Formats: sequence, C-alpha cells, structure tokens
Amino acid sequence: MAIITLTSDWGNSDYYVAAVKGTILSQIPNATIVDISHEITPFNVRQAGFVLKNCFRDFPQGTIHIIGIDSIESTEKPHVVVKADGHYFIAADNGIFGQILTDFDEAVTIDVPQDTDSFNFATRDRFVKVAAMIANGAPLSEIGAPHKKLNGGLFCAVVRDNSIEGIVIHIDSYENLITNITQEMFERERCGRKFKILVKGNLYTIDKISDSYLDVDKADLVAIFGSHGNLELALNSAKLASLCGIELDSTIRVVFGEEDTPPTKNTLF
Amino acid sequence: MAIITLTSDWGNSDYYVAAVKGTILSQIPNATIVDISHEITPFNVRQAGFVLKNCFRDFPQGTIHIIGIDSIESTEKPHVVVKADGHYFIAADNGIFGQILTDFDEAVTIDVPQDTDSFNFATRDRFVKVAAMIANGAPLSEIGAPHKKLNGGLFCAVVRDNSIEGIVIHIDSYENLITNITQEMFERERCGRKFKILVKGNLYTIDKISDSYLDVDKADLVAIFGSHGNLELALNSAKLASLCGIELDSTIRVVFGEEDTPPTKNTLF
Amino acid sequence: MAIITLTSDWGNSDYYVAAVKGTILSQIPNATIVDISHEITPFNVRQAGFVLKNCFRDFPQGTIHIIGIDSIESTEKPHVVVKADGHYFIAADNGIFGQILTDFDEAVTIDVPQDTDSFNFATRDRFVKVAAMIANGAPLSEIGAPHKKLNGGLFCAVVRDNSIEGIVIHIDSYENLITNITQEMFERERCGRKFKILVKGNLYTIDKISDSYLDVDKADLVAIFGSHGNLELALNSAKLASLCGIELDSTIRVVFGEEDTPPTKNTLF
Repeated sequence: MAIITLTSDWGNSDYYVAAVKGTILSQIPNATIVDISHEITPFNVRQAGFVLKNCFRDFPQGTIHIIGIDSIESTEKPHVVVKADGHYFIAADNGIFGQILTDFDEAVTIDVPQDTDSFNFATRDRFVKVAAMIANGAPLSEIGAPHKKLNGGLFCAVVRDNSIEGIVIHIDSYENLITNITQEMFERERCGRKFKILVKGNLYTIDKISDSYLDVDKADLVAIFGSHGNLELALNSAKLASLCGIELDSTIRVVFGEEDTPPTKNTLF
Repeated sequence: MAIITLTSDWGNSDYYVAAVKGTILSQIPNATIVDISHEITPFNVRQAGFVLKNCFRDFPQGTIHIIGIDSIESTEKPHVVVKADGHYFIAADNGIFGQILTDFDEAVTIDVPQDTDSFNFATRDRFVKVAAMIANGAPLSEIGAPHKKLNGGLFCAVVRDNSIEGIVIHIDSYENLITNITQEMFERERCGRKFKILVKGNLYTIDKISDSYLDVDKADLVAIFGSHGNLELALNSAKLASLCGIELDSTIRVVFGEEDTPPTKNTLF
Repeated sequence: MAIITLTSDWGNSDYYVAAVKGTILSQIPNATIVDISHEITPFNVRQAGFVLKNCFRDFPQGTIHIIGIDSIESTEKPHVVVKADGHYFIAADNGIFGQILTDFDEAVTIDVPQDTDSFNFATRDRFVKVAAMIANGAPLSEIGAPHKKLNGGLFCAVVRDNSIEGIVIHIDSYENLITNITQEMFERERCGRKFKILVKGNLYTIDKISDSYLDVDKADLVAIFGSHGNLELALNSAKLASLCGIELDSTIRVVFGEEDTPPTKNTLF
C-alpha cells in the first residue's frame, strides 16, 4: 500500500488538490493520500520545507512526498526525485531540499514525459505519474539520470562573531514564532556563555530557554526549542505575532557574552 | 480496520496534523484517519466539544477520537481515555467531556510513557501510542487506573426564574449562531408559555421557533433547533454574526411569560 | 471500493463535514472519501460547479460525487442523481449541472425517504443513503423516477457582435482570476481577428494569450487558457485580485476587431 503525501500552496478552495488526488486514485488505486498542508504561503519554499522537514520522518519508510510549490520546470529548477532516509520526494529542485534534508541517498532529474500539453500543472500531469512508477517498484534510474547536487542551503541563519542572526520562517496557529536558528547551531555558538534573544530590534529580550510554554507566567515571553529543533518564541496563552507586530521574515537575533547587566525583563506588559 | 478521528486547534498550515497522521500510519498501518476539524479557535475547549458532540455518533462503533486541544498534562488535567456509547476518546481531562457526553462507561488515567523527551506534543507522542493499543484490542485497564470523575459541566446555559441565559458557543461558516441553550432545556423551562429570544441586549428579538431557515423572508431573523439540538439563530441567506456584530461568547437570552405586547418584529432592516 | 467525493460551502471549522464522513463510513465501510473543497463561497453554486467540473474527470470511473451546497429540497430544486461520463453526482438540481456538464446519460429525482426528521442536513441524512445504494450496485431506477431536464445554463458568458462579456467565477489562492469565457467560445468568436481583453472597465488591457505565467515579466498581466479551459488572468508572481480590486462576479470583456492602435501596454506599474 503506497502512502502519498501532498504539500502545496494551492489553498483548499480550488480544484487543484482534488485534481491531484483523483489522478493519484486513478493511477494508484490503493494509495493512502495524506495532506501535509495546502496552506503554505504562495511561493514560500522555505516555509514548505520547514513544514515537511518536521513531519516526514513520522511517516512509514517508503512514503512518497509530492511537493507542489514553485514547481514550474526550468533549467535552474529541474524536476527531481530525491531518496533520503527511506523516503521519496518529488519536486522542482527550487531550494526546498536545503531546508528539508542535510543529506540524501539518491537523486535523479525526471525524464518522464507529461501526457498533457499544459505545463502549468506539473504536479498532476507529471509528479503523479512518477509517484505511480515508484509505487510500482521502478528504480530511480528508470525515471531519469542522476542529479548530482541539490539546490539549497540558502535559508540558514547567519553566524557572526558573538551572535546569530536568524529570521522567522513560520508562524503557527497559536501565533508562535519559529525561527531558522537550530538548537545545534545555538549550542555550538553559545559554548556555555550567557545569551540574550532579541525580538523587534531589542524591544523585547529573553535570556532563558524553557522546557515548556507553561514555564513562564501568562502572557510572558518564552523561548523553547520545539519538537522541530528550532528556536521558537511564544507568549504563554497569547498571540505573539500579532501582539508584537512580527511577520514572516522578521529578524530574530541571539547575542552571546558575559552578562554584566541585571537579568532582563521578559514581560511584555 | 481502525477509524481514528482528529480534533484540534492546530490549523492546517502547520506540520502538526501531518506529524500525527504519519505517526498513526506508522503505528496502525491500516487506519482510516478522519479530520473532525483543526480550525477550532485556539484553546476553545467548549467549541471543540460542541463540534465533536455533534458528529461522533455518526461514526461506526469502536471509532477512536483523538482530541489535541489544551492537551498539556497537569495534575488538574490528566491524560485520559474515556469509553462512551461504544466510542473511545483520548484527551486531556480539561472539561471537554462535560460538553461531549452526559454519561460514560469507563475511563482511565493514561499511564503509558512517552518515547520522546518533549512534553509539548503529547498528541503525537502519547495519544497515538494509546490509540494503537486500543486498536490492537488492549483493555483500558492495561492503559491506566480507573478515572472516576470527568471534569466538565461548566459550559451550560444558566436557568433563572423566567429566563435562560446562554452564550454563543459556535459560529458556523454561514455565520449562524449556535448557543448552549438546548431544546430539552428550552422546553422544560418554557412549560408552554410564550417566549422572546433576545440578541444583542434586546436590540433584536424573535418569538417563534421555525423548522427551516426558509420559513422566514430573506434577511429575516430565524430561530431553529438545529440537528445539534441547540438553539441556533440565523438570517435567511445572510450573515448574522458579522451583520449584527455578534461574537463567540456573546450573551443570548430567552425570556418566558404571558405576552401582552404585540408580536415583535424579527426584521433587521 | 467506492470512492466518494464531497463538495460544500460548510467550511472546515464545523461538524458538518465530519458528520457526513462518519455517516459514509458507517454505511459504506470500505469507502475512500476525498474532499473536493468545503471552502466554496456560501451558496455560490457557480463556483462549486467550476471547481467540480475541473477535477471530477481525474477520478476513476464510478466515483460518486456528493454536492452539499444549496441543497435544501424544493419543487424547483429537487434532489437528483445524475450519471454522466461514468461518474455519479448527488445534489439538488439548483443549476450546478449547467456548470459541470454539457451532457448526461441518466438522471433521476430521488425518491428515497430520510431517516431523520430534520430537513436541514439532507447531505448527511439522504445523499449518503443514496450513495450507499449506488455503491452497492443499485440501478438509478431504484432510486427514483427519470428526471428529464437539468436546470442550468445560466452561467455562460454573453456573446455580442464583436465582443464577449464574461465574469470572474473564481479567484484562486494565487489571486488569479478565472472567468466563464471558455477557449472554445473565444476561438469561435475570434475567427482569427486581433483582440483586447479589458479588465476593470478598460483600465487594464492585454492583447495576447500566453502559454505560461512565466511568459511575461514579473508583475505583468498575463492571460492564459488554464488547464480548466477557461480564460484566466494573472500577474506573474503577484496578486491580481487584491492589487487591482477585482472580486467574484467582476466583468471581464474581450473585444475583437482590426487593431489600428499600437500594441497596448500590459504593465500595471
């Protein structure tokens, strides 16, 4: 039984998602189809990558992940199949893999013709066809020639002398902020030093990492490394993004150093 | 074949829903997963309860309902499994059961360890594991010790001498208002008397219960007992909530008594 | 294995979708359920028809499409089952078929009683029951008497002497505009002549049909015939609808004729 996941920026009010699902059920009758999300911000490959990175390993080995975002083929962004960690990904090589994977086992440039004339809906007209080949056991070598290097690595936080400069890559439904600063990067740069996390320039600061949102008082700022492994900022039981006017791509900085000022205040009000 | 439903306030733009579904498919390969809704207002346990109450009985006996809202475990809100009406519910005992059930057959406090360190995502890391045990036929006694009394009963409308004071607990996609005033409560207090339903203080009133939205003229106020059994207020073919500025938790009153004024006007314009 | 699709204007924050899915799984245990969309604009039968028209053929033959929009039964809008192109449709005959189909093989007026008293939720209480009959192989003649003529044909663009007057019937998640002007209608009226497409009165014009959104510069206006076969207007990598203040039902005109002015400008800024 093939499991196929779908990630896109199509929204849920269009026929696009259903067209792809119908095509999957026509070509892979016993497929189990799971939506990752179709509410990725249009063309936001970084956000799509973040979302997929944080759930694909929860699926069984052999799952096929179709990514329908920024998927028009071009010389710089060929259609590819990537095998990594026992999972298959079908997408345009538009930088998304730099966000999802640190390594991969095998990748090919797709050399399978579409059956339609329209080139605006490759997810339905090409990716599903490729998914059916994989589901039926075709080796990747049958799908195309090896693709040596994946685009990506563009979306990392920047490490400076005594600081890390990241950005908000995702705002969740509670309006918590998820940054591109990973726990691994944070600990490596920190080297046991004190630190301050600065939000909105230095309007709000916090100098402590908590284990849970509940470790601070209601409406206080809390920093945790979520189950995604990235630095996440939130207000206990309140909406950080809209209360503080923070958007996707806003800068978040971590400054390291010996602290000689009194502990900073992490209360907003 | 296990049927698992999911109810949460995670929204559909995050990886949370997919992470839980992937975990379910990894642990219960033949599961049929159905979303109840992931667009519950954050932390609105009452709304989640209303939604689940009104559809869980439509599912086959033995269905397992996972509830991922306000689910961080605490002494006051332990994780529980509840069996009622042939259905299983896995949730934090945060008051939601007072909204969903009037009775239950069996309940246990979950005593199954998580396999991860993070305590911020119990739905994925603990509830799915428990669902897999139930799907595989484990008796509830294997999951934990009996849980005698469920939290809840907080969310009922208040009955006064000649009136009922309720609130809006849900606004549907047509912007109809659903209250926590049930038909049973209404008929019991009414005792055949005349009544007025008051909206927005007493700005809008209606003194008739209809069978269908179409029983009144276009844009007129209509009161029905929906298939959910609760008092529902709507405008025929128009949007009551935004036109009249009514929100979740707005007060709706029903006043009983002999009527000596002429019939009230149920036209907005 | 029965495939059942659902199209409605219920949104995804209510219990309606789940109630229907639970009922399907209770009556057709091995059903595969696929959401077309539940985010149709309330009562917008035209939009629902557009969405379904553009994906139903992607599903396998024999798929049953349940349409839960404007579905309260009346003498003018009886409940019907329509068989066309090997697919089954269950809906109120409210004009939606004029949008989805140009022809049909068989249609019956549903003469199957509901098992509930409420007439406000026919999709759950009647359509699913009919879907189960079809899934179990019942001929349409067992469901009701022949229904000779479907309502519809209301939603076509208007052809005038040297122009076509259409409207925006759908705005997708990229804020592209999809009109009710079909490629077939456009080519038939054009007869090889030059043309101008006029948006917002004649504030924006374009005189070229492209193959891809990428055929014009960033933020330029582009016209294509999408995979749906309808005239679609977009800005390359920008949001046409909100940038230009265009809504559902806005007029879009195509004017044909010998051109004696220089090529028009299709740049917004």
